[in-house]
Amino acid sequence: VDRRIEPAARYKIDLKTKPLGALGRVEELAVQLSVIQQSLMPQVDSKHLFVFAGDHGVVDEGVSAFPAKVTVQMVENFLAGGAAINVFCRQYGIGLNVVDMGVNTTFTSHPLLIDKKVAPGTANFTVQPAMTQEQALAAIENGARAFLEKQAVSPCQIVGMGEMGIGNTSSAAAIICAVSGLSSSQVVGRGTGVDDEGLKRKREVIDRALRLHRPSPDNGLELLTKLGGYELAGIAGAVIAAASKGCCVVLDGIISTAAGLIAYLICPAVQGYLVAGHRSVEQGQQAALKHMGLTAIIDLDFRLGEGTGAAITMNLVDLACRTMREMASFEEAGVDSGNI
Amino acid sequence: VDRRIEPAARYKIDLKTKPLGALGRVEELAVQLSVIQQSLMPQVDSKHLFVFAGDHGVVDEGVSAFPAKVTVQMVENFLAGGAAINVFCRQYGIGLNVVDMGVNTTFTSHPLLIDKKVAPGTANFTVQPAMTQEQALAAIENGARAFLEKQAVSPCQIVGMGEMGIGNTSSAAAIICAVSGLSSSQVVGRGTGVDDEGLKRKREVIDRALRLHRPSPDNGLELLTKLGGYELAGIAGAVIAAASKGCCVVLDGIISTAAGLIAYLICPAVQGYLVAGHRSVEQGQQAALKHMGLTAIIDLDFRLGEGTGAAITMNLVDLACRTMREMASFEEAGVDSGNI
Repeated sequence: VDRRIEPAARYKIDLKTKPLGALGRVEELAVQLSVIQQSLMPQVDSKHLFVFAGDHGVVDEGVSAFPAKVTVQMVENFLAGGAAINVFCRQYGIGLNVVDMGVNTTFTSHPLLIDKKVAPGTANFTVQPAMTQEQALAAIENGARAFLEKQAVSPCQIVGMGEMGIGNTSSAAAIICAVSGLSSSQVVGRGTGVDDEGLKRKREVIDRALRLHRPSPDNGLELLTKLGGYELAGIAGAVIAAASKGCCVVLDGIISTAAGLIAYLICPAVQGYLVAGHRSVEQGQQAALKHMGLTAIIDLDFRLGEGTGAAITMNLVDLACRTMREMASFEEAGVDSGNI
Repeated sequence: VDRRIEPAARYKIDLKTKPLGALGRVEELAVQLSVIQQSLMPQVDSKHLFVFAGDHGVVDEGVSAFPAKVTVQMVENFLAGGAAINVFCRQYGIGLNVVDMGVNTTFTSHPLLIDKKVAPGTANFTVQPAMTQEQALAAIENGARAFLEKQAVSPCQIVGMGEMGIGNTSSAAAIICAVSGLSSSQVVGRGTGVDDEGLKRKREVIDRALRLHRPSPDNGLELLTKLGGYELAGIAGAVIAAASKGCCVVLDGIISTAAGLIAYLICPAVQGYLVAGHRSVEQGQQAALKHMGLTAIIDLDFRLGEGTGAAITMNLVDLACRTMREMASFEEAGVDSGNI
């Protein structure tokens, strides 16, 4: 992003009728959106959220508290409007689509469903790469297309990146271990809720995968190929596409953040467009955010994914833009500015 | 509150299509609203927020970064729609009123303004009690009436408690010191932004007031009389009135929380109706919340007051109720519940 407008944006928010910096992170969002939109009157008229879905071969290793078929079932739940992300999107006026990047079934067509399937799930990355490089590239492209095709018919100024895929916290944690150099015990959490034994198993599985693949920590495509998931690849592609269109991108929990990290490694210029939606209970997310120089906006002890944390933060971005546009300055309101 | 419905509410949220507890604080809010409304289908149709305003004699001691006349100017700003809380209430569909509890001017009438003035500001509590006991009682009653009169014409299920009053972080901090037994250096912060010297002066002022008055730590009326402000008394009265009507009450920053603490000391039964809107940058707020057994829902590094943190949290309470009502259960959605 072109940051030349940033001082003017900061000056404008500083002259609003409030103590200096008193609106904390909302002020930071207001400045960031001014920079992204190259305007001191940033505006978010239209919001969209994608839930990218895919299955994971690594579930064979017993890394999840839920059976693999829950990916399909939850996609059906999204399409029926009954999941948390449906409720959240209705609450905040956010358009929602589900993108099938690699779910292990064939869905019948549905208005909310975008078919971008590359394969019916990844391979088990503890024994072979999760996908081929061709598949990884196709998945990135498909994710980008999902965003661009939607943007062509109904443009949005902000997009949230959600995901669904049983087993995908293992993929995300493996990627974050590889990039950050942290050990699996520092990064791997309970995901949807594995017990102590499950957590130990999950850490061993990731250690084994890292020993097998020895991925270079700064090669996004290689990380995706060896350890990724199709929904992570879809998000990475959509992030790059959205940033290229000047759209603010809101990440969600550890999986969405790991996918954002892949996008960042492939194309560091996306950084200025990224907002870290929420702080996940999963400890590895912090390491990924730190690597990108991002700080999570909210912390509500969420560990759901789907885009739920992103949805709440998208509303706060909207609030921040509105504050920038509508709030009076000391001069406009005839208020003494004090000794600040 | 009658907590007998709580296990059923918890059971209902646990059967929703998500890992156990994965929506963190939103789940806690859903359960709390079920208890308050005695219903497993809690609903927030109508939201209201009051900004209680008053002036403070203690500003003579140089405790604020802003001159006293800013209280009047900011009330005018609220009435003109230009302050942060106006923007926030528009964003979240929250009805707004400003209650003049004790501002040092005579306002002309305005549709948003409720006149409940007891006196044109408190006395300087470093040399005498901030108000008489009769004034404190009148202010509590006036605050209750402000809520009840509004509730009679347009009932709400949730109410936010905001405030405006140059000097009122000193009043709030003094009350919190007295109740918690913590020292002024542990409780007193920079308010709207005093510098190091101002902070030192503010702490000395509060130490002096505490030595002069020696208030008992559990007598809400005495604390209010000796150290309070009219807007704090108004909030205390409104909190008690709202809880008595089964309305959820959302507190805001350190001042709103200190006023909630006064209400809690006078009538501990309000506790179950209280939601701690946001975590303030002011360290003393934590002590007040802890005393009431509350945890702040959001932390956005705010230190503005006006009800801005409460407004955001009122929306999250709405979201929580909607999640309780609309989200599908594992059985309804045909999703396997896993080994949770």
